[in-house]
Amino acid sequence: MTERLYLYDTTLRDGQQTQGVQFSASEKAEIAQMLDQLGVDYIEGGWPGANPTDSDFFADAPNTRATMTAFGMTKRAGRSAENDDVLAAVTNAGTGAVCLVGKTHPFHVREALGISLDENVENIRASVAHLVAQGREALFDAEHFFDGYADDPEYALTCLCAALDAGARWVVLCDTNGGTLPEKVAEVTRAVIAGGIPGDYLGIHCHDDTGNAVACTLAAVNAGARQIQGTLNGLGERCGNASLTTLIPTLMLKEPYSTTLQTGISNGALAGLTRMSRRLDEILNRAPVRAAPYVGASAFAHKAGLHASAILKNPATYEHVEPSVVGNERIIPMSNQAGQSNLRARLADAGIVVERDDRALARILDLVKTREDQGYAYDGAQASFELLALAELGKLQELFSVERYRVTVERRKNAVGKRITVSEAVVVVRIGDERMLSVSESMDEEGQDRGPVNALSRALAKDLGPYQSHIEDMQLVDFRVRITAGGTDAVTRVIIDSADGQGNRWSTVGVSHNIVDASFEALVDAIRWKLIRDGVQAA
Amino acid sequence: MTERLYLYDTTLRDGQQTQGVQFSASEKAEIAQMLDQLGVDYIEGGWPGANPTDSDFFADAPNTRATMTAFGMTKRAGRSAENDDVLAAVTNAGTGAVCLVGKTHPFHVREALGISLDENVENIRASVAHLVAQGREALFDAEHFFDGYADDPEYALTCLCAALDAGARWVVLCDTNGGTLPEKVAEVTRAVIAGGIPGDYLGIHCHDDTGNAVACTLAAVNAGARQIQGTLNGLGERCGNASLTTLIPTLMLKEPYSTTLQTGISNGALAGLTRMSRRLDEILNRAPVRAAPYVGASAFAHKAGLHASAILKNPATYEHVEPSVVGNERIIPMSNQAGQSNLRARLADAGIVVERDDRALARILDLVKTREDQGYAYDGAQASFELLALAELGKLQELFSVERYRVTVERRKNAVGKRITVSEAVVVVRIGDERMLSVSESMDEEGQDRGPVNALSRALAKDLGPYQSHIEDMQLVDFRVRITAGGTDAVTRVIIDSADGQGNRWSTVGVSHNIVDASFEALVDAIRWKLIRDGVQAA
Repeated sequence: MTERLYLYDTTLRDGQQTQGVQFSASEKAEIAQMLDQLGVDYIEGGWPGANPTDSDFFADAPNTRATMTAFGMTKRAGRSAENDDVLAAVTNAGTGAVCLVGKTHPFHVREALGISLDENVENIRASVAHLVAQGREALFDAEHFFDGYADDPEYALTCLCAALDAGARWVVLCDTNGGTLPEKVAEVTRAVIAGGIPGDYLGIHCHDDTGNAVACTLAAVNAGARQIQGTLNGLGERCGNASLTTLIPTLMLKEPYSTTLQTGISNGALAGLTRMSRRLDEILNRAPVRAAPYVGASAFAHKAGLHASAILKNPATYEHVEPSVVGNERIIPMSNQAGQSNLRARLADAGIVVERDDRALARILDLVKTREDQGYAYDGAQASFELLALAELGKLQELFSVERYRVTVERRKNAVGKRITVSEAVVVVRIGDERMLSVSESMDEEGQDRGPVNALSRALAKDLGPYQSHIEDMQLVDFRVRITAGGTDAVTRVIIDSADGQGNRWSTVGVSHNIVDASFEALVDAIRWKLIRDGVQAA
Repeated sequence: MTERLYLYDTTLRDGQQTQGVQFSASEKAEIAQMLDQLGVDYIEGGWPGANPTDSDFFADAPNTRATMTAFGMTKRAGRSAENDDVLAAVTNAGTGAVCLVGKTHPFHVREALGISLDENVENIRASVAHLVAQGREALFDAEHFFDGYADDPEYALTCLCAALDAGARWVVLCDTNGGTLPEKVAEVTRAVIAGGIPGDYLGIHCHDDTGNAVACTLAAVNAGARQIQGTLNGLGERCGNASLTTLIPTLMLKEPYSTTLQTGISNGALAGLTRMSRRLDEILNRAPVRAAPYVGASAFAHKAGLHASAILKNPATYEHVEPSVVGNERIIPMSNQAGQSNLRARLADAGIVVERDDRALARILDLVKTREDQGYAYDGAQASFELLALAELGKLQELFSVERYRVTVERRKNAVGKRITVSEAVVVVRIGDERMLSVSESMDEEGQDRGPVNALSRALAKDLGPYQSHIEDMQLVDFRVRITAGGTDAVTRVIIDSADGQGNRWSTVGVSHNIVDASFEALVDAIRWKLIRDGVQAA
């Protein structure tokens, strides 16, 4: 027999408090739909009335199977719950559930609220009763609970009981400052349950200030709490909240959870977890964390030579779960630490078969090492790596070469005195005996300048003679720049992601002291790779 | 009475297996010195003989107070420890300690080594005895220990005892696949100690595949293990190792550890932890993780309006430790979620005093919101934020303006047929009634092209007339580029870090569809900020 564990997502509220994160209302709606597809039980959408984005989101919130929840705070002293305008803004959002944060720590009641301990208990009671009278599911978020419990366990428990007696469906133990360690979380959660709060009315909300948010959450579940709160990718105030992206696979795949607890997440949804995690980063324009458990690009990357060769025999030797279960994949990164077996495996992935004793393997390894010393990085630029390997294997045809290029960026006032920027590129390409001179301005659909890399890309794509049809549907979809060490000197490394109409997506790298030149190298690699992928033969 | 807890750092060995990380021998030497300054007990430098970098490092390893340790594996079957060339390469490095990895899991003994269980025990015994005979401190790293113990506890324990009986100073429980959860780590560690391995001979080595590396390490310490292994910033294979950067402050500052255990780290060294963490990222050319516990730029950032105003009254309300103890600092980031109290605090940090009820506060908040909608990010560009605020407060003098500029990048063959790249910038600056036309080629000390942003920076700095003396010692020290969302459209955001001869360092931001134009905006802001910082008056 399994018990139900409820998942409460606060990506749209606590996650919004991540430094550098700024959701729009439409991004919130998209994320809410993702969460609903995943199968969480509650979606905390924000604090209606606290800022325009949150108000806009609730005014037009998507229909979800998950219970949409508004966040707010318990009523203030000296007025009734009915007459508290902050609380009214929260309930007016019309959500099925409302979660109200309140104090349980005497220090904060006195310091932050400046009211008596009894008044605070009454604020909790009256606020929850007000929600219940309106037919809402009520949650009480006990701020600073663990610090409060350490200071005055009896008072902290009294606050929880007041909420529960008034009809709260859940009381949530919140480690607001994130400083409580897992053993303490387990101990206090056990004590709270022993003190009369049933585990299936008890939630846990942890932060990662000691790197233990996930472990503290599991510790509370071990002690009997049956609602966990967290965010996708561990977004959240300061060091972030407990990551649901990490907790969900652990709860579904690992003992004792997988056989004793049940969540609302299906195996199919679990297999979409990696994609969902990366989509969120895309929305936020953040680089995904490579080392993220389960979903990170490195989570199943086997770099050590010993590990890589064992993995090729039997993946279970160095993997705690099968990567496809969470929608991730195993990779054998290329680097100068990698041995020849890594290299052959990675080439085989690209459809390039090389015999075990081919001497080119050692030469390719040396070349990768030399280029990485110069600042190249092939871990994240598989297409450029393949070109390098093909060249070394003598299998790369020279389809075209670039004789010269020139790019100009100019800012000035135009005829009507408006400040404009214009970028122009000239490229001279040689294909066999033919020379092709192309010029292009940078320009998007609206006639707006998009800069020198766009101008170069357009000029290059303008006339590739006999190959033209193969590159018409190519698009530059991402562009990343790092200043990095090349030899003893700083250089610029550009990685370009390209895509075509058939759903292919590939990454190339260029390195130079000059950002335009590094971009140009990556652009040329992107076109080369596409032509080879299409099986084009030299004209 | 406190017990000694030993810190074993493997940044230079397991950390080297991070995807995308590639140390040079001299970088390894620098990191070893950092670790020694920090005060760890053991520095695992690498695997002598496994790759050229590690061999080079040991050939010229720095002198450290910490015990320098070479990593390797137990001897292979069918030869004596004395005649194993892989083992010989490890011992020949001449380190005070040697850590040898070996098998304790019957599955791996059979699958990976293909030898009998007894042969494996003998390999462990003989290898450790060989080290001890050479006068080395010996460590046995029990690979896949927790999986092995689950499968066959008696055999796993036999392997540990063989190492200990042969004279090993430490046996280390290694959760190689990273899949073991904290409660299980505690349970097995207790069982191992009950099985006859004293806790002060027992180490723990965890990986972060379930986000529990720190918690598993603490669980083993709670159970009695007295050596912990980890890396700076949690580098390491796949999802990384247990982060010593996170564990050290927890062990030194938090109960029960702070009063019952003692490490070799001084309070002074602890206060240097943030700087050390960032220095390592600099060496690796990685962007520091903002959300990292204790040392991250966001670890003490209070974005929620409620938190920020409480923090201003009493920092203990939302901070579990004092940031300065780990060398970090509190920040109140600027964003459209921030209230006016955040804004005033941040302006006050910059020496800009604004009255509580000044209407400009609301206008500045609106402007920040509008600009962030366009793609700007002021969280990480304080100098540009200050300029924006000063302008809105009517306190920004226009010292100079740029009428136009033009940048050209050209790649071609030079007179002797060598492919070269040339960048040139023309800038027209107006100061009062004067117009100054400057042209500059991009060029470093060696006459090499450094690209369009460098050319622009040089042209701008060439002639700022009366302000020239203030910008002579300015340097562009870092340059970061992101493609980001601006309104409904993708734009390029450039953040430039500048420095001057007095040790000031400041960051500015520019946004445009054109990377050169975005860079130019950030460059101009950098110069403006410097002139204001120096108290320059309009000429």
